Amino acid sequence: MKALVLERKGELAIRDIDLPREVGAHDVKIAIHTVGVCGSDVHYYTHGAIGSFVVREPMVLGHEATGTITEIGSEVTTLKVGDRVCMEPGVPNMASRASKLGIYNVDPDVRFWATPPIHGVLTAEVIHPAAFTYKLPDNVSFAEGAMIEPFAVGMQAATRARITPGDVAVVIGCGPIGIMTAIAALAGGCSKVIISDLSAPKLAIAGQYAGITPVNITETSLKDAVMRSTDGWGADVIFEASGSPKAYQGIFDLLRPGGTLVLVGLPVEPVAFDIPASIFKEARIETVFRYANNFDRAVNLIASGKVDLKPLITDTYDFADSIAAFDRAAKGLPEDVKLQIRIAQ
Amino acid sequence: MKALVLERKGELAIRDIDLPREVGAHDVKIAIHTVGVCGSDVHYYTHGAIGSFVVREPMVLGHEATGTITEIGSEVTTLKVGDRVCMEPGVPNMASRASKLGIYNVDPDVRFWATPPIHGVLTAEVIHPAAFTYKLPDNVSFAEGAMIEPFAVGMQAATRARITPGDVAVVIGCGPIGIMTAIAALAGGCSKVIISDLSAPKLAIAGQYAGITPVNITETSLKDAVMRSTDGWGADVIFEASGSPKAYQGIFDLLRPGGTLVLVGLPVEPVAFDIPASIFKEARIETVFRYANNFDRAVNLIASGKVDLKPLITDTYDFADSIAAFDRAAKGLPEDVKLQIRIAQ
Amino acid sequence: MKALVLERKGELAIRDIDLPREVGAHDVKIAIHTVGVCGSDVHYYTHGAIGSFVVREPMVLGHEATGTITEIGSEVTTLKVGDRVCMEPGVPNMASRASKLGIYNVDPDVRFWATPPIHGVLTAEVIHPAAFTYKLPDNVSFAEGAMIEPFAVGMQAATRARITPGDVAVVIGCGPIGIMTAIAALAGGCSKVIISDLSAPKLAIAGQYAGITPVNITETSLKDAVMRSTDGWGADVIFEASGSPKAYQGIFDLLRPGGTLVLVGLPVEPVAFDIPASIFKEARIETVFRYANNFDRAVNLIASGKVDLKPLITDTYDFADSIAAFDRAAKGLPEDVKLQIRIAQ
Amino acid sequence: MKALVLERKGELAIRDIDLPREVGAHDVKIAIHTVGVCGSDVHYYTHGAIGSFVVREPMVLGHEATGTITEIGSEVTTLKVGDRVCMEPGVPNMASRASKLGIYNVDPDVRFWATPPIHGVLTAEVIHPAAFTYKLPDNVSFAEGAMIEPFAVGMQAATRARITPGDVAVVIGCGPIGIMTAIAALAGGCSKVIISDLSAPKLAIAGQYAGITPVNITETSLKDAVMRSTDGWGADVIFEASGSPKAYQGIFDLLRPGGTLVLVGLPVEPVAFDIPASIFKEARIETVFRYANNFDRAVNLIASGKVDLKPLITDTYDFADSIAAFDRAAKGLPEDVKLQIRIAQ
Repeated sequence: MKALVLERKGELAIRDIDLPREVGAHDVKIAIHTVGVCGSDVHYYTHGAIGSFVVREPMVLGHEATGTITEIGSEVTTLKVGDRVCMEPGVPNMASRASKLGIYNVDPDVRFWATPPIHGVLTAEVIHPAAFTYKLPDNVSFAEGAMIEPFAVGMQAATRARITPGDVAVVIGCGPIGIMTAIAALAGGCSKVIISDLSAPKLAIAGQYAGITPVNITETSLKDAVMRSTDGWGADVIFEASGSPKAYQGIFDLLRPGGTLVLVGLPVEPVAFDIPASIFKEARIETVFRYANNFDRAVNLIASGKVDLKPLITDTYDFADSIAAFDRAAKGLPEDVKLQIRIAQ
Repeated sequence: MKALVLERKGELAIRDIDLPREVGAHDVKIAIHTVGVCGSDVHYYTHGAIGSFVVREPMVLGHEATGTITEIGSEVTTLKVGDRVCMEPGVPNMASRASKLGIYNVDPDVRFWATPPIHGVLTAEVIHPAAFTYKLPDNVSFAEGAMIEPFAVGMQAATRARITPGDVAVVIGCGPIGIMTAIAALAGGCSKVIISDLSAPKLAIAGQYAGITPVNITETSLKDAVMRSTDGWGADVIFEASGSPKAYQGIFDLLRPGGTLVLVGLPVEPVAFDIPASIFKEARIETVFRYANNFDRAVNLIASGKVDLKPLITDTYDFADSIAAFDRAAKGLPEDVKLQIRIAQ
Repeated sequence: MKALVLERKGELAIRDIDLPREVGAHDVKIAIHTVGVCGSDVHYYTHGAIGSFVVREPMVLGHEATGTITEIGSEVTTLKVGDRVCMEPGVPNMASRASKLGIYNVDPDVRFWATPPIHGVLTAEVIHPAAFTYKLPDNVSFAEGAMIEPFAVGMQAATRARITPGDVAVVIGCGPIGIMTAIAALAGGCSKVIISDLSAPKLAIAGQYAGITPVNITETSLKDAVMRSTDGWGADVIFEASGSPKAYQGIFDLLRPGGTLVLVGLPVEPVAFDIPASIFKEARIETVFRYANNFDRAVNLIASGKVDLKPLITDTYDFADSIAAFDRAAKGLPEDVKLQIRIAQ
Repeated sequence: MKALVLERKGELAIRDIDLPREVGAHDVKIAIHTVGVCGSDVHYYTHGAIGSFVVREPMVLGHEATGTITEIGSEVTTLKVGDRVCMEPGVPNMASRASKLGIYNVDPDVRFWATPPIHGVLTAEVIHPAAFTYKLPDNVSFAEGAMIEPFAVGMQAATRARITPGDVAVVIGCGPIGIMTAIAALAGGCSKVIISDLSAPKLAIAGQYAGITPVNITETSLKDAVMRSTDGWGADVIFEASGSPKAYQGIFDLLRPGGTLVLVGLPVEPVAFDIPASIFKEARIETVFRYANNFDRAVNLIASGKVDLKPLITDTYDFADSIAAFDRAAKGLPEDVKLQIRIAQ
């Protein structure tokens, strides 16, 4: 089966590779239609590793995918052949202690697409558990459906924030996950979201959404903007989505007493954290690791029209051009939010 | 000072009445601009009592109000003369045990406008604690501002539901509070809201809002509609806003396992409650008594454009015609959501 | 294999019966040691049915069990042969929507021991998923371990109450589940628990525990007792564990503003529920269906000495005398909390 | 009125000083009986400042106090002359935004005893709002009552942790607040608490309590102890009560997936915080600033016998010897948990 294979750091190939073919009793087989290019895919391409996950064998990339079911296992009752679907790329051990608690995302044994040594889905078809495969309504396209995986991270952030209806939020960092988080926070109950970054083009994209106010911190103090917007009280929720250690300087000055900080971005090094500042505000701090139990809710928000992710799909490539897509993604152009690769014709 | 006075059950008069005039250190004086007519005002007019609250002395009606500050107490720092404001009509003892817990709405000593023996605000001016007076942004009109009090009940319902972003909700009952609850639930994070009633005109008004699906239960089974909309799983949240004992028949059949029922409507008599049905779903049941800490969030949602209450203002009367407004409200026309009375010219 | 078989309503036999023998990859085989007699076992014996669960085929009774592992499946890593264990009797579909959310107890497909048509464990051995089998520490006996299943219901009640440390609780009903709930509430953070009943012998058993105050409602007004104990403020949490419709009369008078009512008991008929009383207190109402994710916590509480369930084991029967145990249990003597049957010698 | 006055850094005097004498309508006057010596009192004595709070004028020390009511204001109904009471030392503006939310502890305008420029209560009598004065039951002594203030910090930690009944907790740091936190966590629902420190005498004091396991990290790896105690799963809750930046090294290795870290200790400098480690566990992090709504619950736990703080009162001084008490406290002997000063004879 042809697939986009990361042979080793810096080397991609479209070539045949042996992939699992057996449909288990609780599995479905899916003909892949569209796959989004994620920063982690690109990072494996450019660096060969993310933290302790190192590419040691050729690995198929891609984990933001939609497709059509072509076969179902003997015990599958919730899906049928022909269903258009999106897929949750992490498969936990559902009998694990974490999964029993409903937090299967932190099951240490989770197997996640395109995370070494697990293959991704930039290929013609995949076998996947029905339990992690979600039907797309007719009014959600394959392209939008392939946005659900990154949006689910924003959904997880909005969920863990436990937004009170009408809350004012700040999102620090206007990359793809920052924007997704801002959209999810707004759909998830916030009255308004201030998003900050250094990059004017990124902020311009976020600013297209009603309710999201971009703040360019090269021009404006984020603290001033927040205080102006909240009568000096501070934001109810801050989402840290930049992964920059600098974001932590004075971060609690933005927060109202008793407010919530949600950690989404992954700084490479330990950050200098002002514990007393967090304590004097009696802040709650939540962290976000991937997502759990969010795909169905994300589908609902898109299908209902409350969330529109189409403006974030910057460009679409044919599978034959997928290496070009990766080379462009590796440049990290500020105007590019999401590049997608279309497998099915 | 001229006011709309309920002399006794069934008898209204616009006449002079003595009202408090002293502005305490923590108070503001407000020139009233607009006052909405609430079902409770009308009920005192038509029945002379609500439960144990009986009109024994002439009482000024009205508690959904906006106006302009004309004087501030010596200790007030958060507001100034000229500020356009809306007011929370219940004033608790802030040192009470309930208030210290942040649930000042259930302080037994709360004094609430137009609830015997406390006067309401269908008059030229009122003295009110600054702590329960909220500044309106320039883009929120006095008329919209006077909608915040009833909307705050919907906000309280949406808040206590603890919506997870993307939840599907059902609202039973399409009266003013049902519609407010549906709007708040949608703004507060739901992906879609199904609202049910017997009255086609009421449902037509709710159906104007994107994301709200009306179901006329004289034509369609609510359970069928909910199951169709949720793939047979059931709604995440049900808001009971009809106050009808009939609504409780089979109500847990609409709910997903582990879902939440929020009680907003006040049935006059004890209802037959199916405890085992609630237990088999392991439902959480929340109740809503007025509101606390919601006015500022409601103002934010209206100011940001996320919530538009203007379509719910059916008609506006001059103060001189306010008895006519009450007589119309007493008819309970299904096309009438909210009638307002303008005091200021 | 010999087992205690309910042939039909009213007829028990100790006889051979065919039971599953194959140990799946994720299963363990357990030699049963002790099994408690539960009210539901007895009810199937005396009535042949519980609600829609009707005994149509001979069924082995018993679901409160401990034993020793004699064999493990090929994929089991968390347990080993020789481990002393207790077992959670309900096995859900772990890939279901409810299980993914962590609320596997409300998975509609759960298979529960001694609930028709699923066999129970009053027999020599059983095959069970390792994921629902919990190791007992050395200082927890098989007899205590067999108390964990009913105690887990109390744990679920205490968990869903979301007790704030120092809360004052009331438990209505001093049957086995009422006592278990009182003990769990106390261990789970309450400062004191008032338990009420009509039966002096039952109350005497509960009153042995420090921190539990029995109130005999044939002699004392429960409301007076609660108000005296809380300075007129009301209880923070009320657990309804009697299943009596009468318990609902004036139940919210016992509750503080903003307090919580937890429904544990299952009234046979719809109860008259005072919705306005719940709303004026802005009560939260939680319901309890069996348990999820509690067995490990229950084991910890017993092992640490914080919870002592031994005083609740009234008598122990040999397996050969198990019909006598059921006949005694069917009498419902007020002095009997728990009868146990010892399978292993 | 004679008081213990901190004249300036390092200089204490027992001398007359002018203190407020007017009992407001909502106030009570209290004859002080016992006052505990707190680390913050000592720090003002030895350093003249804590952070931005600098002693610029002579200030009376002491804020952990009990006494007897000698006079009540005209509006006070909840207390009477002769009541034995303990007092919450922080008085917020109850009409502030934070107070309305129930988090009056983070009201920026809170006035806190013995925090410059507010006088403390090491003197004969004090005027205090009735709302922050709590009646002691007959079976709680003045000495125990004066332990409630520091215990309330532990209660706040246990409350914000949102303990699930049966949780396993770790407390890092065995100073007075660490021990109080361990006791509160145990009373608040934990099955067991592991407490760590470098000081054997401190650990010996904590180890007197059933359910608290001391770990001396000069001898034993805390991680090993936690993993042994939790079958390799990790603790449900970690309380950081040492204030040492070193405690943050590897702190998330102690935590189970989805567990909670509660920050109680105040490191003087920013700590190196491993954000990815917190995210991979999807930890929740709560912070503790003083306390709110906990004094009544603390009183209940002591009165019910569930919590015994008497072993933590190391020694008691007469008021005339209070400078000696401070000089001893300034030495920070590991055997000293709490020194108290008795004002009344």
